[in-house]
Amino acid sequence: MTTKTNPGRFFEDYQLGQVIAHAVPRTVGAGERALYHALYPARHALYSSDEFARACGLPESPLDDLAAFHVVFGKTVPDISLNAVANLGYAEGRWLQPVYAGDTLRSSSEVIGLKQNSNGNTGVVWVRTTGTNQRGEAVMEYVRWVMVRKRDADAPAPATTVPELKKALAVEDLTLPEGLDFSSYDFTLAGEPHRWGDYQVGEVIDHVDGVTIEEAEHMMATRLWQNTAKVHFDLTFRPEGRLIYGGHVISMARALSFNGLANAQMIVGLNGGAHANPCFAGDTIKAWSEVLDKAETTTPGVGAVRLRLVATKDGHVGHAHGEDGKYLPGVLLDLDYWALMPL
Amino acid sequence: MTTKTNPGRFFEDYQLGQVIAHAVPRTVGAGERALYHALYPARHALYSSDEFARACGLPESPLDDLAAFHVVFGKTVPDISLNAVANLGYAEGRWLQPVYAGDTLRSSSEVIGLKQNSNGNTGVVWVRTTGTNQRGEAVMEYVRWVMVRKRDADAPAPATTVPELKKALAVEDLTLPEGLDFSSYDFTLAGEPHRWGDYQVGEVIDHVDGVTIEEAEHMMATRLWQNTAKVHFDLTFRPEGRLIYGGHVISMARALSFNGLANAQMIVGLNGGAHANPCFAGDTIKAWSEVLDKAETTTPGVGAVRLRLVATKDGHVGHAHGEDGKYLPGVLLDLDYWALMPL
Amino acid sequence: MTTKTNPGRFFEDYQLGQVIAHAVPRTVGAGERALYHALYPARHALYSSDEFARACGLPESPLDDLAAFHVVFGKTVPDISLNAVANLGYAEGRWLQPVYAGDTLRSSSEVIGLKQNSNGNTGVVWVRTTGTNQRGEAVMEYVRWVMVRKRDADAPAPATTVPELKKALAVEDLTLPEGLDFSSYDFTLAGEPHRWGDYQVGEVIDHVDGVTIEEAEHMMATRLWQNTAKVHFDLTFRPEGRLIYGGHVISMARALSFNGLANAQMIVGLNGGAHANPCFAGDTIKAWSEVLDKAETTTPGVGAVRLRLVATKDGHVGHAHGEDGKYLPGVLLDLDYWALMPL
Repeated sequence: MTTKTNPGRFFEDYQLGQVIAHAVPRTVGAGERALYHALYPARHALYSSDEFARACGLPESPLDDLAAFHVVFGKTVPDISLNAVANLGYAEGRWLQPVYAGDTLRSSSEVIGLKQNSNGNTGVVWVRTTGTNQRGEAVMEYVRWVMVRKRDADAPAPATTVPELKKALAVEDLTLPEGLDFSSYDFTLAGEPHRWGDYQVGEVIDHVDGVTIEEAEHMMATRLWQNTAKVHFDLTFRPEGRLIYGGHVISMARALSFNGLANAQMIVGLNGGAHANPCFAGDTIKAWSEVLDKAETTTPGVGAVRLRLVATKDGHVGHAHGEDGKYLPGVLLDLDYWALMPL
Repeated sequence: MTTKTNPGRFFEDYQLGQVIAHAVPRTVGAGERALYHALYPARHALYSSDEFARACGLPESPLDDLAAFHVVFGKTVPDISLNAVANLGYAEGRWLQPVYAGDTLRSSSEVIGLKQNSNGNTGVVWVRTTGTNQRGEAVMEYVRWVMVRKRDADAPAPATTVPELKKALAVEDLTLPEGLDFSSYDFTLAGEPHRWGDYQVGEVIDHVDGVTIEEAEHMMATRLWQNTAKVHFDLTFRPEGRLIYGGHVISMARALSFNGLANAQMIVGLNGGAHANPCFAGDTIKAWSEVLDKAETTTPGVGAVRLRLVATKDGHVGHAHGEDGKYLPGVLLDLDYWALMPL
Repeated sequence: MTTKTNPGRFFEDYQLGQVIAHAVPRTVGAGERALYHALYPARHALYSSDEFARACGLPESPLDDLAAFHVVFGKTVPDISLNAVANLGYAEGRWLQPVYAGDTLRSSSEVIGLKQNSNGNTGVVWVRTTGTNQRGEAVMEYVRWVMVRKRDADAPAPATTVPELKKALAVEDLTLPEGLDFSSYDFTLAGEPHRWGDYQVGEVIDHVDGVTIEEAEHMMATRLWQNTAKVHFDLTFRPEGRLIYGGHVISMARALSFNGLANAQMIVGLNGGAHANPCFAGDTIKAWSEVLDKAETTTPGVGAVRLRLVATKDGHVGHAHGEDGKYLPGVLLDLDYWALMPL
């Protein structure tokens, strides 16, 4: 027997400054768009209707921002997280232009940080991943850090480099889509009357609705993004239950947040995020949001709102941490992002 | 915590003559079409092959008529049936033109009837819903009535208005697609030799095949139509089992009816329908049809046939009611529609 | 009650030389492509990226070769295998040109062999099936033989004709897509560095990954190809468990084989195949391959490799038969095919 299969990279296979071109470019289109609507209760009008998107200055309805993220992220899995013990965090995520039907996406990652853990068996790798389209233009980028196993515990530790990352992007860091214009935004078609001015910093919104998760759904979603990490698919590998891809929880929670945040149309920044507890089939995902910040933009009719999106499996609303400062066991996700809203 | 989420309308929120523009327009395309074929055993050739559709005078294969119905219907849920206790009936449903890939659909409903129930806690609301495309042309319309909770039992009852609805559309009420022509219809490609003249009023057809329903499938279907009623998704809301969207049963039964009614290609009228008993995952849907009426049309080569489509979960064929006049417990659906067939 | 439903053909309904035009042509497109990626962990770059396909001389990314096979095969089910007791084998399968979005496929089969079994109750039927596109051009063909029930055991046996079939296609029998050129093949984007020259006849590759199968997935896949054989859908018909369509196992195993055979891009020949044991929901499919043969081609940069693809439900690698010469109980599939690889 030969070993032509990908064993994945181990901690000592990463060097600072190394750029990894990820494999398997992907053309997206009408099929991915429909599947996104079948897998998540997605109702944001800009991603549902070409006509609505055109009325907002875009050429047509783009692929959901999170779907673009999943495609870019999925390509990195064989190179970054195949031997990962834990997905530790995200930062400085920026959507740089919308993805349209017919676009072909690819990803590459630069290693921007390395730190061996004191136990000598694992280390933390920071990468900045960029997704580009067929014209070579960046469509999004984000930093992610993971804990990775060492192949050989005795391999020497690299010099420690911990990148300085912004706690949150400032509104000036965000890139708004060219041509976007919410001046004649149709609130009736969008589904809710609440505009940027109606949201207050500190406000908490219970999104009320819930979805009980099924195995077939999360596997279809995860495969669609060509994320092939074993833990999501192979019950002989994880007899205690297939672990649901964290991105499935993100998309589910974001779609549920339509109810109360129907006008938080576009995601343009990802400040941070934690997959607080694992999610399994049978869990019922619910979500609540907190308004963290608000900012004006120079794009006509468009305001930015910084939101915290918390997904739970117990329906608890309003706080995610216990008295010990740790995540409550019912919390699945704690995400911090910037969205665009009509003024 | 703030309440920006949609609480749904209560009985006293409806006024006679009120027109409600439903939110979230939706562009449909190649993805919705493929998903429809993945979710249902749909084989009617006109909806499967662009070439077959062209040979019948249409520009290309339209979206399945029931998919068009589901999209139009789905948009009404947040405004009409979020607080509904029961979906009581349909009438005067007419498909006015086919929906093609790239079309963007929206819906609006006019309140055409109101009647408070004697218990004072609920009332019946009749609405006529119209789906329109991006050119503002109506693609379908139907009347539906639901029983809705009152917010406040002490709120005064509105004047009772019960609309006069046709028991069944006459063939003159039907709109046949422009250009349609079954003169050179290919029965071999369509899958069955039986033409309009081969069906007799009173004839009963057992469609034989069955599909055992899974949770992931009905949820994907229901989300695809952006119908987000809680009862279909949230097992903590309905621990006794997620209720399957009635439209899923309609589409499943119609697709199964291919076997014996392969040439009942287009649905153009919905005379009435009852969701006789709830459907749950694990049920095996089978179907039988009865020919209720036949009529000639002025469209070349096209006859109309009025069909009763009964879906069951026990495989019983031929009658749907017990001796007490009530639906048998194994009956899921009793639908009355007009379809177009080659002469 | 009338009998307009399709009872399927019985053994005595087939005559040597008979050509059966199968019903329900199908237009494929962006939706089928996305669904294929959602249902299988498919990552071969030529089928994932229009840009990659163009760099290989094709106009765009074709529909997966196995999806084309499933569509062509699905149409034959109502005429060939509705009353089949067993699917006995495949031979001389050739992909003749890629299928692109917008193509409409149909199928026809010629009866090329008949042999009544000694028990008098069943017989074997050999058919050569051809799939053609909207221009009437053949896109693929294959021979398949099935054991079919007789309607009437006393019906006379036809003259026995057993077609002479090649054990395996020679490389000269294969049709390579017009324009294909792997001269500037991008191994980094494709995901693995192993080229044609790196594979040795006799080499065995363990594809490592596994997928635990769910009911909703295999039913969606099987319906997508309009294969409506009862055994796959109706739990009241098969209370012991819905039988998974053999083609679902083929596609799953082929997609898993990416890990180690990422550059075996196109399938151009099917030499044979056996569905060794039935597959049910809950089984975890894994796969291994063996290199059976290699051949040069006259297409620039392209080599052919003959592969044996074995799917298992027990993860056993390296041999498929027991000491008794029979398939081991954990083996699901034993497939023999030709694929194209960059030199």
